[in-house]
Amino acid sequence: MHPTDPNALGALPPAAVTAEVADLARRARAAGRALTRASGAQRTAALLGMAAALEEQASTLVVVNAEDVRDAGARGTSGAMLDRLTLTAGRVTDMARALREVAAQDDPLGEVEALTVRPNGLRVGRMRIPLGVVGIVYEARPNVTADAAALCIKSGNATLLRGGSEAHRTNAALVACLQGALVAAGLPADAVLALPSTDRGYILAMVQAEGLVDLVIPRGGEALIRFVTQNARVPVIQHYKGVCHVFVDRAADEARAIDICVNAKAQRPGVCNAMETLLVHAEIADSFLPKVAEALTARGVELRGCPETLRRVPTATPATDADWAAEYLDLILAVRVVPSLDAAIAHIEAWGSDHTESIVSEDYTAVSRFMAEVNSSVVVANASTRFADGGQLGLGAEMGISTSRLHAYGPMGARELTTRKFVVYGAGHVRT
Amino acid sequence: MHPTDPNALGALPPAAVTAEVADLARRARAAGRALTRASGAQRTAALLGMAAALEEQASTLVVVNAEDVRDAGARGTSGAMLDRLTLTAGRVTDMARALREVAAQDDPLGEVEALTVRPNGLRVGRMRIPLGVVGIVYEARPNVTADAAALCIKSGNATLLRGGSEAHRTNAALVACLQGALVAAGLPADAVLALPSTDRGYILAMVQAEGLVDLVIPRGGEALIRFVTQNARVPVIQHYKGVCHVFVDRAADEARAIDICVNAKAQRPGVCNAMETLLVHAEIADSFLPKVAEALTARGVELRGCPETLRRVPTATPATDADWAAEYLDLILAVRVVPSLDAAIAHIEAWGSDHTESIVSEDYTAVSRFMAEVNSSVVVANASTRFADGGQLGLGAEMGISTSRLHAYGPMGARELTTRKFVVYGAGHVRT
Repeated sequence: MHPTDPNALGALPPAAVTAEVADLARRARAAGRALTRASGAQRTAALLGMAAALEEQASTLVVVNAEDVRDAGARGTSGAMLDRLTLTAGRVTDMARALREVAAQDDPLGEVEALTVRPNGLRVGRMRIPLGVVGIVYEARPNVTADAAALCIKSGNATLLRGGSEAHRTNAALVACLQGALVAAGLPADAVLALPSTDRGYILAMVQAEGLVDLVIPRGGEALIRFVTQNARVPVIQHYKGVCHVFVDRAADEARAIDICVNAKAQRPGVCNAMETLLVHAEIADSFLPKVAEALTARGVELRGCPETLRRVPTATPATDADWAAEYLDLILAVRVVPSLDAAIAHIEAWGSDHTESIVSEDYTAVSRFMAEVNSSVVVANASTRFADGGQLGLGAEMGISTSRLHAYGPMGARELTTRKFVVYGAGHVRT
Repeated sequence: MHPTDPNALGALPPAAVTAEVADLARRARAAGRALTRASGAQRTAALLGMAAALEEQASTLVVVNAEDVRDAGARGTSGAMLDRLTLTAGRVTDMARALREVAAQDDPLGEVEALTVRPNGLRVGRMRIPLGVVGIVYEARPNVTADAAALCIKSGNATLLRGGSEAHRTNAALVACLQGALVAAGLPADAVLALPSTDRGYILAMVQAEGLVDLVIPRGGEALIRFVTQNARVPVIQHYKGVCHVFVDRAADEARAIDICVNAKAQRPGVCNAMETLLVHAEIADSFLPKVAEALTARGVELRGCPETLRRVPTATPATDADWAAEYLDLILAVRVVPSLDAAIAHIEAWGSDHTESIVSEDYTAVSRFMAEVNSSVVVANASTRFADGGQLGLGAEMGISTSRLHAYGPMGARELTTRKFVVYGAGHVRT
């Protein structure tokens, strides 16, 4: 099915596909310019119209989606995957709610945080502007279609969407619905475009469209993300995985620590901001480990521990290095006793994925050092790792979580899809 | 000389080179961690020590550089290139001055602009941190060695330097000098490392060191930048060229406009922020074009014009599409009469390079629209394009000018070599 070997570096799409995607990207760019020139009020009206259109067409969308789900089931797609693919009336309502939340946020465009005055009187500021054309490559979840379109429109970007092949009917119906609302709001339909095929050749053409596509965000499995990164010639922001840590310091409030550990591991184990490794300060291990083990075991969590852990929790099984690296996405937890804060930080540096780490401690210096020295994209004191989420952190919706440091680090909202140009105001200034 | 064809996509460095560069990058990363943990005062002291060391060793540096210059001359290197390569006592003093200017700037690290409070009481902010390991690929100019090292140390980044082969002795001496000052300030020498060879295989290994190198900035000719971009698997920030425009609006102050045009074109024509195309509003063309043509011709500028220009400036030669795209870097100027502000913006969109554009106008709405709608990296009102420079805009020194919108857009200083992590403060918060 694929025109190229996904693992071959330097794979090139067929010329006709390159031309087709270039044409789409040019249409998207023109539409993006119209978005930029539209007022914030007009972009907000379009988002509200998109939310209403989704709700109006909910029953049609659910019927179309059922065909995708039926086909995927017939091809033997597994339960979790089928669940992600499935659209219900309730999920359409959730998508509409997310659109309204994005609509309600401040307009990021045009903002100049400060104008400073140079010694020669020249006034210098930076004005926030869109990136241009943003490509999104994702898999089965249809809500990504609406979220991505909403964040891009909010930030004045045109978007090129490439959803998973399992959801192709659903995504086509969603894009048509969103485009209708855009046109009704006086904005161009081309601001939200879908690639015409889910064939990987189209991804290749998009990620190699230098000068036509400004950013590609791959969301999904590690193989897809690697395919995009290794073949891209346009900028890519990605995250591979979340191996999140909670460090329970010797000065932790134990009851708080237990609540946080149970929440971080068991509230929703299948997501990237769930805890995968628990680090416990040796000085508190005798008291804390048996209690937290009991609470976690009661929630069905399997524990894999270092020798020091096994001594205090005989029901745990021995952990290997593979466990320190594991993103289980399941009710399994690696547990390690560390002799110090420094050892905890060193463990995170060695095994972490730059996603999210939390310290539980009442010690001022320990918290200060952890917050300063752990350079993951989200660093948390005395709260669950599960808060590493655009909505929870105040971004409205989220486009993904970046674990690469360039441009944006951590959850990305509409503002993270913008850049800043210099604006310089003179009075006939020339350089001497 | 090159182990790979620079134009071959998917070119791979020899395994031994990959291993050698990986080892260097790991040493740099460890040194970068030490930089991050050092206080701002310690990094400032190191920068001042580097400035002093350069001045103390100036005579030695000049002697070493003379060998590079002699060899380059013997190989037939041209005058402008030899000039860029040459180090004099005065130029060493300039390098030291730039180091002191970087030292004098505010410490960008650790800053949290605002902590906002979520409805559940969670406090959320973003703390500025280094990128990690920054690679710089450049050509003959030795001052880039000191500027790049200084901006990286200021921002807590370790740096991997790859200067041009013509300057290899000079750069080795400069790096040794800077490393000595780092060690004297109690910081690791590995924070500033040079690749052991100028062979392109080492560039390839550096730009493909995923997870080891966080950013590569290529500075120099278009061929070098394309080589880096096309082979990179780590993030790259680059600018290809500067085709800068000045638009003289119908409401321009003519005397101001003439000063600005002469300055933008003739004050230093060989740099990327010099004007390459002049756009003149048709309503002012009869009056303004002969005057500006006379002022420019008096400075030795050759004019290439559209038919409407030729009608008013008979000494100009006809311009072709190649002139609208040209970065002359010379005393040549393309001139076009445009019927409106919209036509000026459309010309810049079609032919510009996203570098710097200036409007000369006393009209409030015309200036407002130009500043809002032209999305080049630097947009200027009533001043020369020559101000598009990190030092002039208040960044201290500059690492280059980005014309790609991701991460940084326009001149890049120390702050542009940082990112921001989320810091989240709770009181036992769990997610429900």
